Amino acid sequence: MEFSQVITSRRAVNFFDTTKDVPDSLLKQAIDMAAKTPSSFNLQPWSLMALRNKEDKLRLQKLAMGQPKVSEAPVTLIVLADRSGWTDDNPFVERNFQEMIKAGTAKEESRDWFGKARKKLYGQSKESELAFACKNTGFFAMALMLAAKSLGLDTHPMDGFDHEGVREEFHIPDQYWIPVLIAVGYFDESKERAPAKWRKTADEILVTFE
Amino acid sequence: MEFSQVITSRRAVNFFDTTKDVPDSLLKQAIDMAAKTPSSFNLQPWSLMALRNKEDKLRLQKLAMGQPKVSEAPVTLIVLADRSGWTDDNPFVERNFQEMIKAGTAKEESRDWFGKARKKLYGQSKESELAFACKNTGFFAMALMLAAKSLGLDTHPMDGFDHEGVREEFHIPDQYWIPVLIAVGYFDESKERAPAKWRKTADEILVTFE
Repeated sequence: MEFSQVITSRRAVNFFDTTKDVPDSLLKQAIDMAAKTPSSFNLQPWSLMALRNKEDKLRLQKLAMGQPKVSEAPVTLIVLADRSGWTDDNPFVERNFQEMIKAGTAKEESRDWFGKARKKLYGQSKESELAFACKNTGFFAMALMLAAKSLGLDTHPMDGFDHEGVREEFHIPDQYWIPVLIAVGYFDESKERAPAKWRKTADEILVTFE
Repeated sequence: MEFSQVITSRRAVNFFDTTKDVPDSLLKQAIDMAAKTPSSFNLQPWSLMALRNKEDKLRLQKLAMGQPKVSEAPVTLIVLADRSGWTDDNPFVERNFQEMIKAGTAKEESRDWFGKARKKLYGQSKESELAFACKNTGFFAMALMLAAKSLGLDTHPMDGFDHEGVREEFHIPDQYWIPVLIAVGYFDESKERAPAKWRKTADEILVTFE
Protein backbone atom coordinates (compact mmCIF):
# COMPACT_ATOMS: atom_id res chain seq x y z
CA MET A 1 0.00 0.00 0.00
CA GLU A 2 1.21 3.53 -0.76
CA PHE A 3 2.60 5.32 2.31
CA SER A 4 0.25 8.29 1.88
CA GLN A 5 -2.70 5.93 1.81
CA VAL A 6 -1.48 4.12 4.93
CA ILE A 7 -1.06 7.31 6.93
CA THR A 8 -4.42 8.70 5.81
CA SER A 9 -6.44 5.51 6.21
CA ARG A 10 -5.01 4.49 9.59
CA ARG A 11 -7.80 5.34 11.99
CA ALA A 12 -8.48 4.35 15.57
CA VAL A 13 -11.45 2.10 14.86
CA ASN A 14 -14.02 1.54 17.60
CA PHE A 15 -15.57 -1.64 16.26
CA PHE A 16 -13.74 -4.83 15.40
CA ASP A 17 -15.13 -7.71 13.40
CA THR A 18 -15.34 -10.48 16.00
CA THR A 19 -15.54 -13.17 13.32
CA LYS A 20 -12.15 -12.36 11.75
CA ASP A 21 -8.99 -13.56 13.43
CA VAL A 22 -5.49 -12.13 13.00
CA PRO A 23 -3.14 -15.01 12.21
CA ASP A 24 -0.02 -15.09 14.33
CA SER A 25 2.15 -14.94 11.22
CA LEU A 26 0.49 -11.68 10.11
CA LEU A 27 0.89 -10.12 13.55
CA LYS A 28 4.56 -11.09 13.57
CA GLN A 29 5.00 -9.67 10.08
CA ALA A 30 3.69 -6.30 11.33
CA ILE A 31 5.96 -6.48 14.39
CA ASP A 32 9.01 -7.31 12.26
CA MET A 33 8.28 -4.32 10.02
CA ALA A 34 7.91 -2.05 13.05
CA ALA A 35 11.11 -3.47 14.52
CA LYS A 36 13.00 -1.33 11.98
CA THR A 37 12.19 1.68 14.17
CA PRO A 38 15.27 3.68 15.20
CA SER A 39 16.05 4.09 18.89
CA SER A 40 18.55 5.65 21.28
CA PHE A 41 21.88 3.82 20.71
CA ASN A 42 19.71 1.20 18.92
CA LEU A 43 18.68 -0.11 22.36
CA GLN A 44 15.08 -0.91 21.28
CA PRO A 45 13.59 -0.71 24.80
CA TRP A 46 10.19 -2.04 23.72
CA SER A 47 8.29 -5.25 24.31
CA LEU A 48 4.76 -6.47 23.68
CA MET A 49 2.39 -8.79 25.47
CA ALA A 50 -0.20 -10.16 23.04
CA LEU A 51 -3.54 -11.13 24.59
CA ARG A 52 -5.67 -13.43 22.44
CA ASN A 53 -7.52 -15.47 25.04
CA LYS A 54 -11.00 -14.04 25.70
CA GLU A 55 -10.63 -14.34 29.45
CA ASP A 56 -7.34 -12.44 29.45
CA LYS A 57 -8.81 -9.70 27.28
CA LEU A 58 -11.78 -9.35 29.63
CA ARG A 59 -9.42 -8.97 32.60
CA LEU A 60 -7.73 -6.15 30.70
CA GLN A 61 -11.04 -4.60 29.57
CA LYS A 62 -12.18 -4.32 33.18
CA LEU A 63 -9.10 -2.21 33.92
CA ALA A 64 -9.52 -0.13 30.73
CA MET A 65 -12.78 1.68 31.48
CA GLY A 66 -14.71 -1.37 30.26
CA GLN A 67 -14.08 -0.47 26.62
CA PRO A 68 -15.62 -3.34 24.58
CA LYS A 69 -12.96 -3.13 21.84
CA VAL A 70 -10.35 -4.46 24.26
CA SER A 71 -12.01 -7.87 24.15
CA GLU A 72 -13.72 -7.61 20.74
CA ALA A 73 -10.44 -7.25 18.86
CA PRO A 74 -8.86 -10.64 18.15
CA VAL A 75 -5.57 -9.44 19.65
CA THR A 76 -4.95 -6.72 22.18
CA LEU A 77 -1.35 -5.71 22.79
CA ILE A 78 0.03 -4.38 26.04
CA VAL A 79 2.93 -2.18 24.95
CA LEU A 80 5.85 -2.07 27.36
CA ALA A 81 8.57 0.58 27.64
CA ASP A 82 11.67 -0.63 29.48
CA ARG A 83 12.95 2.09 31.80
CA SER A 84 16.01 -0.05 32.48
CA GLY A 85 16.67 -0.52 28.77
CA TRP A 86 19.94 1.45 29.11
CA THR A 87 21.52 -0.19 32.19
CA ASP A 88 24.70 -2.30 32.14
CA ASP A 89 22.86 -5.40 33.35
CA ASN A 90 20.05 -5.26 30.77
CA PRO A 91 20.60 -8.27 28.47
CA PHE A 92 19.75 -6.28 25.32
CA VAL A 93 22.39 -3.69 26.20
CA GLU A 94 25.08 -6.38 26.13
CA ARG A 95 23.54 -7.95 23.03
CA ASN A 96 23.59 -4.56 21.32
CA PHE A 97 27.24 -4.05 22.22
CA GLN A 98 28.19 -7.48 20.90
CA GLU A 99 26.31 -6.77 17.65
CA MET A 100 28.22 -3.49 17.31
CA ILE A 101 31.52 -5.28 17.78
CA LYS A 102 30.46 -7.85 15.19
CA ALA A 103 29.53 -5.05 12.75
CA GLY A 104 32.81 -3.24 13.42
CA THR A 105 31.13 -0.10 14.77
CA ALA A 106 32.48 -0.54 18.32
CA LYS A 107 35.50 -2.07 19.99
CA GLU A 108 35.72 -3.86 23.31
CA GLU A 109 37.68 -0.84 24.67
CA SER A 110 34.70 1.43 24.12
CA ARG A 111 32.46 -0.51 26.53
CA ASP A 112 33.17 1.96 29.29
CA TRP A 113 32.52 5.01 27.11
CA PHE A 114 29.15 3.61 26.01
CA GLY A 115 28.15 2.82 29.59
CA LYS A 116 28.98 6.33 30.73
CA ALA A 117 27.17 7.90 27.76
CA ARG A 118 24.02 5.84 28.43
CA LYS A 119 24.09 6.75 32.10
CA LYS A 120 24.60 10.42 31.36
CA LEU A 121 21.82 10.60 28.76
CA TYR A 122 19.18 8.28 30.21
CA GLY A 123 20.13 7.52 33.79
CA GLN A 124 20.44 10.99 35.29
CA SER A 125 16.99 10.95 36.87
CA LYS A 126 13.75 8.99 37.01
CA GLU A 127 12.47 11.50 34.48
CA SER A 128 15.20 10.94 31.90
CA GLU A 129 14.82 7.17 32.24
CA LEU A 130 11.06 7.35 31.70
CA ALA A 131 11.40 9.76 28.79
CA PHE A 132 13.94 7.43 27.15
CA ALA A 133 11.59 4.45 27.50
CA CYS A 134 8.39 6.21 26.40
CA LYS A 135 9.87 8.17 23.52
CA ASN A 136 11.49 5.14 21.90
CA THR A 137 8.51 2.90 22.56
CA GLY A 138 6.29 5.64 21.15
CA PHE A 139 8.34 5.48 17.93
CA PHE A 140 7.87 1.73 17.83
CA ALA A 141 4.12 1.77 18.60
CA MET A 142 3.48 4.27 15.82
CA ALA A 143 5.47 2.24 13.31
CA LEU A 144 3.49 -0.81 14.41
CA MET A 145 0.11 0.86 13.85
CA LEU A 146 1.20 1.97 10.40
CA ALA A 147 2.74 -1.40 9.53
CA ALA A 148 -0.49 -3.11 10.62
CA LYS A 149 -2.52 -0.80 8.38
CA SER A 150 -0.21 -1.51 5.43
CA LEU A 151 -1.05 -5.20 5.90
CA GLY A 152 -4.79 -4.51 5.94
CA LEU A 153 -5.18 -4.54 9.73
CA ASP A 154 -6.93 -1.93 11.85
CA THR A 155 -5.83 -0.80 15.29
CA HIS A 156 -6.96 1.30 18.21
CA PRO A 157 -4.42 2.80 20.63
CA MET A 158 -5.74 3.33 24.18
CA ASP A 159 -4.29 4.89 27.28
CA GLY A 160 -7.49 5.09 29.28
CA PHE A 161 -6.59 2.36 31.75
CA ASP A 162 -5.52 1.83 35.33
CA HIS A 163 -1.74 1.75 34.86
CA GLU A 164 -0.83 0.12 38.18
CA GLY A 165 -3.86 -2.16 38.02
CA VAL A 166 -2.75 -3.55 34.65
CA ARG A 167 0.80 -3.97 35.95
CA GLU A 168 -0.43 -5.98 38.91
CA GLU A 169 -3.03 -8.05 37.03
CA PHE A 170 -0.54 -9.13 34.36
CA HIS A 171 2.55 -9.43 36.60
CA ILE A 172 4.46 -6.79 34.68
CA PRO A 173 7.82 -6.03 36.34
CA ASP A 174 8.40 -2.54 37.73
CA GLN A 175 11.02 -1.64 35.16
CA TYR A 176 8.32 -1.28 32.48
CA TRP A 177 6.06 1.68 31.92
CA ILE A 178 2.89 0.85 29.98
CA PRO A 179 2.47 3.73 27.52
CA VAL A 180 -0.40 2.31 25.49
CA LEU A 181 -2.62 -0.66 24.72
CA ILE A 182 -3.28 -1.43 21.05
CA ALA A 183 -6.30 -3.41 19.89
CA VAL A 184 -5.56 -5.12 16.55
CA GLY A 185 -8.01 -6.69 14.11
CA TYR A 186 -10.33 -5.83 11.25
CA PHE A 187 -12.88 -3.03 11.25
CA ASP A 188 -16.45 -4.26 11.52
CA GLU A 189 -17.73 -3.16 8.13
CA SER A 190 -21.35 -3.27 9.31
CA LYS A 191 -20.56 -0.19 11.44
CA GLU A 192 -20.05 3.37 10.29
CA ARG A 193 -16.57 4.86 10.42
CA ALA A 194 -16.43 8.03 12.50
CA PRO A 195 -15.31 11.08 10.48
CA ALA A 196 -11.62 11.96 10.78
CA LYS A 197 -10.88 14.22 13.74
CA TRP A 198 -9.36 17.69 13.47
CA ARG A 199 -5.60 18.02 13.54
CA LYS A 200 -3.17 20.86 14.13
CA THR A 201 -1.70 22.18 10.89
CA ALA A 202 2.02 22.39 10.16
CA ASP A 203 1.80 26.12 10.88
CA GLU A 204 0.31 25.40 14.29
CA ILE A 205 2.92 22.74 15.05
CA LEU A 206 5.89 24.94 14.17
CA VAL A 207 6.73 27.29 17.04
CA THR A 208 9.37 29.83 17.96
CA PHE A 209 10.30 31.34 21.32
CA GLU A 210 11.78 34.77 21.85
CA MET B 1 6.30 5.23 -2.26
CA GLU B 2 5.19 1.81 -1.00
CA PHE B 3 4.93 1.63 2.78
CA SER B 4 7.23 -1.40 3.01
CA GLN B 5 9.86 0.50 1.03
CA VAL B 6 9.52 3.57 3.26
CA ILE B 7 9.95 1.59 6.46
CA THR B 8 12.90 -0.38 5.08
CA SER B 9 14.71 2.51 3.43
CA ARG B 10 14.32 5.00 6.29
CA ARG B 11 17.76 5.07 7.84
CA ALA B 12 19.40 7.46 10.25
CA VAL B 13 21.85 8.97 7.78
CA ASN B 14 25.09 10.46 9.08
CA PHE B 15 25.93 12.63 6.09
CA PHE B 16 23.71 15.27 4.55
CA ASP B 17 24.22 16.89 1.18
CA THR B 18 25.03 20.48 2.12
CA THR B 19 24.19 21.73 -1.37
CA LYS B 20 20.56 20.57 -1.32
CA ASP B 21 18.00 22.59 0.54
CA VAL B 22 14.64 21.37 1.87
CA PRO B 23 11.97 23.79 0.67
CA ASP B 24 9.65 25.00 3.40
CA SER B 25 6.65 23.69 1.46
CA LEU B 26 8.11 20.16 1.42
CA LEU B 27 8.89 20.25 5.14
CA LYS B 28 5.34 21.40 5.86
CA GLN B 29 3.97 18.65 3.63
CA ALA B 30 5.81 16.07 5.75
CA ILE B 31 4.58 17.71 8.98
CA ASP B 32 0.99 17.76 7.74
CA MET B 33 1.19 14.06 6.90
CA ALA B 34 2.64 13.28 10.33
CA ALA B 35 -0.05 15.43 11.96
CA LYS B 36 -2.48 12.55 11.30
CA THR B 37 -0.82 10.74 14.20
CA PRO B 38 -3.29 9.59 16.88
CA SER B 39 -2.90 10.87 20.43
CA SER B 40 -4.42 10.67 23.90
CA PHE B 41 -7.88 12.32 23.64
CA ASN B 42 -6.56 13.75 20.33
CA LEU B 43 -4.61 16.33 22.37
CA GLN B 44 -1.59 16.35 20.00
CA PRO B 45 0.92 17.57 22.61
CA TRP B 46 3.73 18.05 20.11
CA SER B 47 5.48 21.06 18.63
CA LEU B 48 8.56 21.63 16.50
CA MET B 49 11.20 24.32 16.30
CA ALA B 50 12.81 24.32 12.85
CA LEU B 51 16.38 25.62 12.73
CA ARG B 52 17.60 26.62 9.27
CA ASN B 53 19.98 29.43 10.04
CA LYS B 54 23.60 28.18 10.16
CA GLU B 55 24.37 30.11 13.31
CA ASP B 56 21.37 28.62 15.15
CA LYS B 57 22.30 25.12 14.02
CA LEU B 58 25.86 25.61 15.26
CA ARG B 59 24.55 26.73 18.67
CA LEU B 60 22.58 23.49 18.79
CA GLN B 61 25.48 21.37 17.49
CA LYS B 62 27.68 22.62 20.33
CA LEU B 63 25.12 21.24 22.81
CA ALA B 64 24.71 17.98 20.87
CA MET B 65 28.16 16.44 21.30
CA GLY B 66 29.40 18.50 18.36
CA GLN B 67 27.76 16.16 15.83
CA PRO B 68 28.40 17.75 12.40
CA LYS B 69 25.05 16.58 10.97
CA VAL B 70 23.22 19.01 13.26
CA SER B 71 24.52 21.90 11.18
CA GLU B 72 25.13 20.08 7.87
CA ALA B 73 21.46 19.15 7.44
CA PRO B 74 19.51 22.02 5.85
CA VAL B 75 16.91 21.83 8.64
CA THR B 76 17.30 20.51 12.16
CA LEU B 77 14.14 20.14 14.21
CA ILE B 78 13.91 20.45 17.97
CA VAL B 79 10.98 18.21 18.87
CA LEU B 80 8.95 19.35 21.86
CA ALA B 81 6.63 17.28 24.05
CA ASP B 82 4.17 19.38 26.04
CA ARG B 83 3.85 18.01 29.59
CA SER B 84 0.99 20.46 30.16
CA GLY B 85 -0.81 19.32 27.02
CA TRP B 86 -3.67 17.94 29.16
CA THR B 87 -4.34 20.86 31.54
CA ASP B 88 -7.51 22.96 31.56
CA ASP B 89 -5.63 26.13 30.68
CA ASN B 90 -3.74 24.70 27.70
CA PRO B 91 -5.16 26.46 24.61
CA PHE B 92 -5.17 23.23 22.53
CA VAL B 93 -7.23 21.47 25.21
CA GLU B 94 -10.00 24.05 24.82
CA ARG B 95 -9.59 24.01 21.03
CA ASN B 96 -9.92 20.23 21.06
CA PHE B 97 -13.07 20.43 23.16
CA GLN B 98 -14.62 23.00 20.84
CA GLU B 99 -13.78 20.82 17.83
CA MET B 100 -15.47 17.86 19.54
CA ILE B 101 -18.59 19.92 20.16
CA LYS B 102 -18.53 21.04 16.52
CA ALA B 103 -18.20 17.39 15.39
CA GLY B 104 -20.99 16.31 17.74
CA THR B 105 -18.75 13.95 19.72
CA ALA B 106 -18.99 15.96 22.98
CA LYS B 107 -21.48 18.28 24.65
CA GLU B 108 -20.80 21.35 26.77
CA GLU B 109 -22.03 19.35 29.82
CA SER B 110 -19.20 16.85 29.42
CA ARG B 111 -16.47 19.48 29.93
CA ASP B 112 -16.13 18.51 33.58
CA TRP B 113 -15.97 14.78 32.82
CA PHE B 114 -13.20 15.32 30.27
CA GLY B 115 -11.23 17.51 32.66
CA LYS B 116 -11.39 14.89 35.39
CA ALA B 117 -10.48 12.07 33.00
CA ARG B 118 -7.43 13.99 31.72
CA LYS B 119 -6.31 14.77 35.24
CA LYS B 120 -6.75 11.18 36.35
CA LEU B 121 -4.90 9.70 33.38
CA TYR B 122 -2.11 12.21 32.79
CA GLY B 123 -2.00 14.52 35.80
CA GLN B 124 -1.57 12.09 38.69
CA SER B 125 2.18 12.57 38.93
CA LYS B 126 5.16 14.14 37.23
CA GLU B 127 5.78 10.70 35.76
CA SER B 128 2.36 10.28 34.16
CA GLU B 129 2.56 13.79 32.72
CA LEU B 130 5.99 13.13 31.20
CA ALA B 131 4.95 9.71 29.86
CA PHE B 132 1.87 11.29 28.24
CA ALA B 133 4.00 13.94 26.54
CA CYS B 134 6.84 11.66 25.40
CA LYS B 135 4.69 8.75 24.22
CA ASN B 136 2.43 10.90 22.04
CA THR B 137 5.31 12.99 20.73
CA GLY B 138 7.18 9.75 20.04
CA PHE B 139 4.24 8.65 17.85
CA PHE B 140 4.41 11.96 16.01
CA ALA B 141 8.19 11.98 15.56
CA MET B 142 8.13 8.48 14.08
CA ALA B 143 5.34 9.37 11.66
CA LEU B 144 7.34 12.44 10.69
CA MET B 145 10.50 10.47 9.91
CA LEU B 146 8.49 8.05 7.77
CA ALA B 147 6.52 10.82 6.06
CA ALA B 148 9.79 12.59 5.27
CA LYS B 149 11.21 9.41 3.73
CA SER B 150 8.07 8.95 1.63
CA LEU B 151 8.75 12.40 0.19
CA GLY B 152 12.36 11.53 -0.62
CA LEU B 153 13.89 13.16 2.45
CA ASP B 154 16.37 11.61 4.85
CA THR B 155 16.45 12.16 8.58
CA HIS B 156 18.57 11.45 11.65
CA PRO B 157 17.00 11.33 15.12
CA MET B 158 19.36 12.27 17.95
CA ASP B 159 19.04 12.33 21.70
CA GLY B 160 22.70 12.78 22.49
CA PHE B 161 22.41 16.37 23.69
CA ASP B 162 22.44 18.48 26.84
CA HIS B 163 18.70 18.62 27.56
CA GLU B 164 18.75 21.58 29.95
CA GLY B 165 21.41 23.32 27.90
CA VAL B 166 19.22 23.21 24.78
CA ARG B 167 16.22 24.40 26.79
CA GLU B 168 18.14 27.39 28.05
CA GLU B 169 19.89 28.25 24.77
CA PHE B 170 16.64 28.26 22.79
CA HIS B 171 14.37 29.73 25.51
CA ILE B 172 12.15 26.66 25.61
CA PRO B 173 9.52 26.93 28.36
CA ASP B 174 9.63 24.43 31.24
CA GLN B 175 6.42 22.68 30.23
CA TYR B 176 8.21 21.03 27.29
CA TRP B 177 10.40 17.95 27.40
CA ILE B 178 12.76 17.63 24.44
CA PRO B 179 12.62 13.95 23.46
CA VAL B 180 14.62 14.15 20.25
CA LEU B 181 16.28 16.33 17.63
CA ILE B 182 15.74 15.39 13.99
CA ALA B 183 18.11 16.45 11.23
CA VAL B 184 16.29 16.60 7.88
CA GLY B 185 17.74 16.78 4.39
CA TYR B 186 19.15 14.62 1.62
CA PHE B 187 21.77 11.92 2.05
CA ASP B 188 25.15 12.88 0.68
CA GLU B 189 25.41 10.32 -2.12
CA SER B 190 29.19 10.67 -2.25
CA LYS B 191 29.31 8.88 1.12
CA GLU B 192 28.74 5.21 1.82
CA ARG B 193 25.57 4.18 3.61
CA ALA B 194 26.28 2.24 6.79
CA PRO B 195 24.83 -1.28 6.74
CA ALA B 196 21.47 -1.69 8.50
CA LYS B 197 21.84 -2.39 12.22
CA TRP B 198 20.56 -5.53 13.95
CA ARG B 199 17.04 -5.51 15.31
CA LYS B 200 15.11 -7.64 17.77
CA THR B 201 12.83 -10.11 16.02
CA ALA B 202 9.09 -10.35 16.64
CA ASP B 203 9.78 -13.41 18.79
CA GLU B 204 12.18 -11.41 20.92
CA ILE B 205 9.75 -8.49 21.22
CA LEU B 206 6.81 -10.64 22.33
CA VAL B 207 7.07 -11.45 26.03
CA THR B 208 5.00 -13.14 28.71
CA PHE B 209 5.26 -12.98 32.51
CA GLU B 210 4.26 -15.75 34.88
